[in-house]
Amino acid sequence: MKFSKFPTKAGRRSLSRSISQSSTDSYSSAASYTDSSDDETSPRDKAQVNTHGSSDFCVKNIKQAEFGRREIEIAEQDMSALISLRKRAQGEKPLAGAKIVGCTHITAQTAVLIETLVALGAQCRWTACNIYSTQNEVAAALAETGVPVFAWKGESEDDFWWCIDRCVNTEGWQANMILDDGGDLTHWVYKKYPSVFKKVRGIVEESVTGVHRLYQLSKAGKLCVPAMNVNDSVTKQKFDNLYCCRESILDGLKRTTDIMFGGKQVVVCGYGEVGKGCCTALKALGAIVCITEIDPICALQACMDGFRVVKLSEVIRQMDVVITCTGNKNVVTREQLDRMKNGCIVCNMGHSNTEIDVASLRSPELTWERVRSQVDHIIWPDGKRVVLLAEGRLLNLSCSTVPTFVLSITATTQALALIELFNAPEGRYKQDVYLLPKKMDEYVASLHLPNFDAHLTELSDEQAKYMGLNKNGPFKPNYYR
Amino acid sequence: MKFSKFPTKAGRRSLSRSISQSSTDSYSSAASYTDSSDDETSPRDKAQVNTHGSSDFCVKNIKQAEFGRREIEIAEQDMSALISLRKRAQGEKPLAGAKIVGCTHITAQTAVLIETLVALGAQCRWTACNIYSTQNEVAAALAETGVPVFAWKGESEDDFWWCIDRCVNTEGWQANMILDDGGDLTHWVYKKYPSVFKKVRGIVEESVTGVHRLYQLSKAGKLCVPAMNVNDSVTKQKFDNLYCCRESILDGLKRTTDIMFGGKQVVVCGYGEVGKGCCTALKALGAIVCITEIDPICALQACMDGFRVVKLSEVIRQMDVVITCTGNKNVVTREQLDRMKNGCIVCNMGHSNTEIDVASLRSPELTWERVRSQVDHIIWPDGKRVVLLAEGRLLNLSCSTVPTFVLSITATTQALALIELFNAPEGRYKQDVYLLPKKMDEYVASLHLPNFDAHLTELSDEQAKYMGLNKNGPFKPNYYR
Amino acid sequence: MKFSKFPTKAGRRSLSRSISQSSTDSYSSAASYTDSSDDETSPRDKAQVNTHGSSDFCVKNIKQAEFGRREIEIAEQDMSALISLRKRAQGEKPLAGAKIVGCTHITAQTAVLIETLVALGAQCRWTACNIYSTQNEVAAALAETGVPVFAWKGESEDDFWWCIDRCVNTEGWQANMILDDGGDLTHWVYKKYPSVFKKVRGIVEESVTGVHRLYQLSKAGKLCVPAMNVNDSVTKQKFDNLYCCRESILDGLKRTTDIMFGGKQVVVCGYGEVGKGCCTALKALGAIVCITEIDPICALQACMDGFRVVKLSEVIRQMDVVITCTGNKNVVTREQLDRMKNGCIVCNMGHSNTEIDVASLRSPELTWERVRSQVDHIIWPDGKRVVLLAEGRLLNLSCSTVPTFVLSITATTQALALIELFNAPEGRYKQDVYLLPKKMDEYVASLHLPNFDAHLTELSDEQAKYMGLNKNGPFKPNYYR
Amino acid sequence: MKFSKFPTKAGRRSLSRSISQSSTDSYSSAASYTDSSDDETSPRDKAQVNTHGSSDFCVKNIKQAEFGRREIEIAEQDMSALISLRKRAQGEKPLAGAKIVGCTHITAQTAVLIETLVALGAQCRWTACNIYSTQNEVAAALAETGVPVFAWKGESEDDFWWCIDRCVNTEGWQANMILDDGGDLTHWVYKKYPSVFKKVRGIVEESVTGVHRLYQLSKAGKLCVPAMNVNDSVTKQKFDNLYCCRESILDGLKRTTDIMFGGKQVVVCGYGEVGKGCCTALKALGAIVCITEIDPICALQACMDGFRVVKLSEVIRQMDVVITCTGNKNVVTREQLDRMKNGCIVCNMGHSNTEIDVASLRSPELTWERVRSQVDHIIWPDGKRVVLLAEGRLLNLSCSTVPTFVLSITATTQALALIELFNAPEGRYKQDVYLLPKKMDEYVASLHLPNFDAHLTELSDEQAKYMGLNKNGPFKPNYYR
Repeated sequence: MKFSKFPTKAGRRSLSRSISQSSTDSYSSAASYTDSSDDETSPRDKAQVNTHGSSDFCVKNIKQAEFGRREIEIAEQDMSALISLRKRAQGEKPLAGAKIVGCTHITAQTAVLIETLVALGAQCRWTACNIYSTQNEVAAALAETGVPVFAWKGESEDDFWWCIDRCVNTEGWQANMILDDGGDLTHWVYKKYPSVFKKVRGIVEESVTGVHRLYQLSKAGKLCVPAMNVNDSVTKQKFDNLYCCRESILDGLKRTTDIMFGGKQVVVCGYGEVGKGCCTALKALGAIVCITEIDPICALQACMDGFRVVKLSEVIRQMDVVITCTGNKNVVTREQLDRMKNGCIVCNMGHSNTEIDVASLRSPELTWERVRSQVDHIIWPDGKRVVLLAEGRLLNLSCSTVPTFVLSITATTQALALIELFNAPEGRYKQDVYLLPKKMDEYVASLHLPNFDAHLTELSDEQAKYMGLNKNGPFKPNYYR
Repeated sequence: MKFSKFPTKAGRRSLSRSISQSSTDSYSSAASYTDSSDDETSPRDKAQVNTHGSSDFCVKNIKQAEFGRREIEIAEQDMSALISLRKRAQGEKPLAGAKIVGCTHITAQTAVLIETLVALGAQCRWTACNIYSTQNEVAAALAETGVPVFAWKGESEDDFWWCIDRCVNTEGWQANMILDDGGDLTHWVYKKYPSVFKKVRGIVEESVTGVHRLYQLSKAGKLCVPAMNVNDSVTKQKFDNLYCCRESILDGLKRTTDIMFGGKQVVVCGYGEVGKGCCTALKALGAIVCITEIDPICALQACMDGFRVVKLSEVIRQMDVVITCTGNKNVVTREQLDRMKNGCIVCNMGHSNTEIDVASLRSPELTWERVRSQVDHIIWPDGKRVVLLAEGRLLNLSCSTVPTFVLSITATTQALALIELFNAPEGRYKQDVYLLPKKMDEYVASLHLPNFDAHLTELSDEQAKYMGLNKNGPFKPNYYR
Repeated sequence: MKFSKFPTKAGRRSLSRSISQSSTDSYSSAASYTDSSDDETSPRDKAQVNTHGSSDFCVKNIKQAEFGRREIEIAEQDMSALISLRKRAQGEKPLAGAKIVGCTHITAQTAVLIETLVALGAQCRWTACNIYSTQNEVAAALAETGVPVFAWKGESEDDFWWCIDRCVNTEGWQANMILDDGGDLTHWVYKKYPSVFKKVRGIVEESVTGVHRLYQLSKAGKLCVPAMNVNDSVTKQKFDNLYCCRESILDGLKRTTDIMFGGKQVVVCGYGEVGKGCCTALKALGAIVCITEIDPICALQACMDGFRVVKLSEVIRQMDVVITCTGNKNVVTREQLDRMKNGCIVCNMGHSNTEIDVASLRSPELTWERVRSQVDHIIWPDGKRVVLLAEGRLLNLSCSTVPTFVLSITATTQALALIELFNAPEGRYKQDVYLLPKKMDEYVASLHLPNFDAHLTELSDEQAKYMGLNKNGPFKPNYYR
Repeated sequence: MKFSKFPTKAGRRSLSRSISQSSTDSYSSAASYTDSSDDETSPRDKAQVNTHGSSDFCVKNIKQAEFGRREIEIAEQDMSALISLRKRAQGEKPLAGAKIVGCTHITAQTAVLIETLVALGAQCRWTACNIYSTQNEVAAALAETGVPVFAWKGESEDDFWWCIDRCVNTEGWQANMILDDGGDLTHWVYKKYPSVFKKVRGIVEESVTGVHRLYQLSKAGKLCVPAMNVNDSVTKQKFDNLYCCRESILDGLKRTTDIMFGGKQVVVCGYGEVGKGCCTALKALGAIVCITEIDPICALQACMDGFRVVKLSEVIRQMDVVITCTGNKNVVTREQLDRMKNGCIVCNMGHSNTEIDVASLRSPELTWERVRSQVDHIIWPDGKRVVLLAEGRLLNLSCSTVPTFVLSITATTQALALIELFNAPEGRYKQDVYLLPKKMDEYVASLHLPNFDAHLTELSDEQAKYMGLNKNGPFKPNYYR
């Protein structure tokens, strides 16, 4: 099949869906360290070959491999859990025979994951889940070591599907495991190569969106292989939300606005895990924080944690910073934007790009001025400026970096989920969506404790009996969150 | 029935169980404010009558009623949720016809609950769930207003059961609701007056112990009425554990030892909600805190929250304070007690009195010296002293007071559970143990928000639809904890 | 001289001043642990003798000595700096020949100081600086070991001066050093036995009031010996204000009101060191704190530390707790008290009893109700209650205990000041008031570091030279505060 | 004088000093937002003219003026104190007649200062105090409005002095005020145009280095005009050290290393204001922090604030991050660098570049690898990497931005100092170095309070009298720091 025949954007409507929103989200500008003033030739039009003579890949520039290797090595230093997993499992090669097709952000951290999978015996083909998020040098480094990678930063939508197709549709190799982030790969296989699922032992999916789609498939009775939802594992949840946001809210605001936190009046909309993380950090740095909530239980927690619970409209005039973390839509309305004071910063840490009514700001009486990357001044007729970050998309994806350590937890969980699904005895998993068993969640956590030089206590036999627990866990009920 | 015929301690073995452990736990010395140098006559031997001519009660001294009334009035100021419930529900008298027999601590706060139940239409008879915890003045104040109360501070075990019996076994009045704390009342009814259950519409149980017993009855198929587990409601859990311990660890240590927290080296065993509360407070006051954990997930949380995770034996020599919050047994062993430094303070915030191996300290080579109420110095042959608080029982029950606000949450939940069970249409509840519906949990929370002048945000129709929620809640899934 | 001839209260006006205010301040009820139901005979009318046959003392009950000894031993555990000073200086007996007359609170902690002075070679006679603050058992323990102590809890004003006189005016013994707290002893010597100053080598004074008087004497040219102001040493200031208030604000509020801090709205008047300590602790426990200030620099610090800066009148209606720490008068006025909400708690951490206009509350339309020791409800005609603590006197003196560690710093500083003045070569100190040399301040600090297992770094020769410092300090300029 | 005759680097030795160290410190890469790939022509060789026809300036590219204007406008939003000063003082033009020659970083923030001075009546000529720190666009914007600016990013040392000379040595204009940052301008005038001092009414100096030089001149009797030390004003000190470092330590570490703070083991060397700021922030974000100190008083403060006090060598093996804030040299030695663990991050927040012995790392057995701007990996023969930031220079100058608000305080202080010196009556200031009067310090603070919507309380007459204060301040003694 000549790929130029691949349906154009218009033609692809027959697929009944376009690229997922997350695939086009902007992504941290920190993602690439090398010069972006590269030549403009599309990688699809270049003939490249790695030093081993293979040309089964498509990356921006294979010559950047050395730089990418260094980035991978730096990442390895903070991902000792995966390295340790490599060591523990390497002898038995638990993924021997696994043929994994993967679709994730392609960064130094996922490279550490991919190379771990290879070390455990798997063959991998990989593509990007987002058209902006590929670190070209890292893709080059992977291609150089022989992993067929099809991804570069700044793909077109057509490129995006072409890359996925090249991963799946290859002669003499058929995937038996899928690792997906966002569900686009899974979707493509469903639509184009449904027969692949006959051999596939399972899907591991990381994103909210992708997991949502799997549950829908399952409900509709169309899920034909077991799927593991790693998004909702306890460890990932706590890190992605509470702890990671605690750090990234500061970083995102600082890198975009150089704001001084001390004494700033901040309102955080939503006091779930994300809101809690944001509030903790901002309060700790001297900001004066209040929150809005719809849920009385979270509101009561906010009170006990020392935050005033207010309605947004009551306080909007006094605020220096407005942060949304609700998962809802139109939490900040045009009317509220109209009432903000000059210089007020507005950003979103929550969900997609729905929380701030950005569309309402695209009206003729307002002037938009891009003052820095990801920073727009919206100027009212009277001269008032509101500072909008990342056009209302997720601040921590767009304007800060995610700590390697957090990514390590996700990657380790993904690796364990793959091992579990690939090796599970017939019948353990049906055609359904599963959460990682609590015990594996605990194992992921335990692999990360050495980073902190943390020493676990072991139960004595007598204590285990008293508690009714197995000495090796699981220690938490499955419903623990 | 003449009560002196009631089985003696030995005889009662036929009941196959003695008084529950929690019934004899020591209880805060703050529980009574009036002079304890009262006469020594047993209340059972006194003839007392209130100003309305009734003698259907048995309290220490009915003349203390006025003092008790003042304590109740003070408590009412911090229990506005119950007062507000009185107002909202008073017109319709949702408990009209309810005959409630209750067995709880008898304090100013439970008096506010009891008087709320009466205001909502119920008739009540009440007794104490703990032989030490009755505030005599409050019991007098209740008896004075006509609530038959049978309780005093310092009951014997025989008194304890006699009081319960007098509540249940009364001519011309039969309970149709049970409110219990610890399960002793429920147990007594099961053993002595099982026919009472024919009329009982439900049991509301507050304690861990009592709930545990109910689940056992349910499992054994012996639970013959619906029971509501208010112990595990979200609001109560968060307040009783995280927030309440955050405050009471400081208070308990300060009142017993006058310790300065700044710079003290503290090890907290267990990083569940109780441990998290203790660690937060101690760190905030300048202590240097490390933790022990058996569970890698909690251990990882501790790391991220800035606490070193250690084994107790590694650090025991350096510690100034050792606090247990594990729910386990023998967490602090004699060997570790032997290695503590001079002046080390040891106490328990966790579970019952099992966590510190106190029994091992009752050996001839060690001298015990009671230096203050609830404070013992254990003296080693070389002169080393370890400071043991509350003999290893729960510090916050024994040595600090529980904020009225926390008790308000529990009491409001109990009142709502009684209303729900009493008014539920036939068939809504079976002979099983139920958690309070999430929506009622949220209602309890919402009743407490005005205390903080907190203003909830309401979902717009559009937002509710987007989230798939009812505008009035529940906002959380039932599995939310 | 028969003391009954001593001037009566009226007659003593000739002394041109009465007892100092601080001498009659109420003092923590924790000060005495033994039963207060003692016999009512005045100690002055009792004949007592210790086991060594001496009767040169006057205490409540010499038989309480053993109990007092235990309290002293407990205090010693937290005063290792003094114990270590005893060891370092004991060989050379730097106070050999010193005859010290002292007037301080008589507590277990001052007993450790007194016994240290004795161990270093001094002879001491001691009396109380406050008519309420003597721990009778401790006084007995000191008397039992042979220190002539004249003090008991609950002295009359006449007793107070009689005790001072008995310390100073004794046959065959004349003081050559004075240790004072409040200046009453110094005043008495000035008025009655001015010739004593011929032999006195110096005065060590601890209190704000006493220091103030010394500076006045110095200004008036009437100070006839050197005096050391230990009140303003850096170490003491930081501990007495910032750190000590950080702990005692929580303790004082909890012991009096059992308040839950989480979510409480608190206004702190004044953001000096005391205010900073209070705000830090309350915020850390989840209170929502705002401050009032007159000084823009402190106000700016409050902003940066995350506190809203408001005028009291703007917020008074919403507050749950009002705390004064300004050192000023009428900071909380009757008009503001009128506008407080029901249940608002008002207390003073600042200065004397001037900050809250308590006098304005003693008016006929308001009812005072004493609900606990140190806790009054002031009831407005409409039923509103304001909770006034310690009648507006210092909360942390009246309602909480002061950590032994803080007292250890003061006591060590006093001991060093005595050694310095007693041993200083002629001419080093003139008839003036001196601050402790910075180097001694640093020495006091260094003696307390082992309590925290803290390890100081030493400068290398090269580093000392680079910084222009002596390797052994002082490290701070004298103006450092 | 033709400037090409200006002494070359070698020749200038006769000036007995070269450019000050601070003039060549690297400076945040955030300083310029426009493309640096400009043409390579030296500005000195270009003929440029602004739209008003003036060519009395020398900047990179006058065409960048519009972009620079926008940066200035953004800065104005956070510098409302200066704007408010403009408004208050504009009527009376307190700087009418002032001819100010200035030498500072040329940034949007200093532009706001310069334009304030102009608005108050001054004429200004300006040059850069650092060869890297000029924002070219801002310099262009200033030149465009008619301020003669001589500065660009990336000057050579020769350019540096040439620019200064062009400011001072101009026909028909002679400075009567000097505003300096680092002392290079002052030095140049002393050496080359000493006669200028006849007309100069005063010098305002901001930097530690410059102030040090002025005190030396003063000591040597060579200071011939009054000088104002704005570096040591209270407001500036608190902001530049405690508060600013609290924010910039996080920012600097995050931008360079993307480190996750939670659970990291950090040692901070030095617990002065800078160290306190760093420790507060890191602890707040979940790092586990210990400190080293030479001074027992600061060490005791660290203990009370909850930090273990250790010797660096005791803990060096366990640390994830090492931060120096001592002001000393060789605080981190090669031997300690040898013992660090793989991946340890080392940086300096203290003083110049002396604290870490970077020179010792430039030895043949170690490999340096520049992994990002300002980030070097030093690689040991065994593969261990130590991550060195900014080559040991100040992290917050090199790798983070300084909040505009902090710069606003400095700039306002400078403006007030200029007004004070220019308008002071004869005799108020002698040929000496002065601190800003406390009252002016308080005025600077008060001008910044509106940013926080902070409301100062005013003393009543009665209160002012009681405190012995003027109602308008100053409220602090002059020795307050």
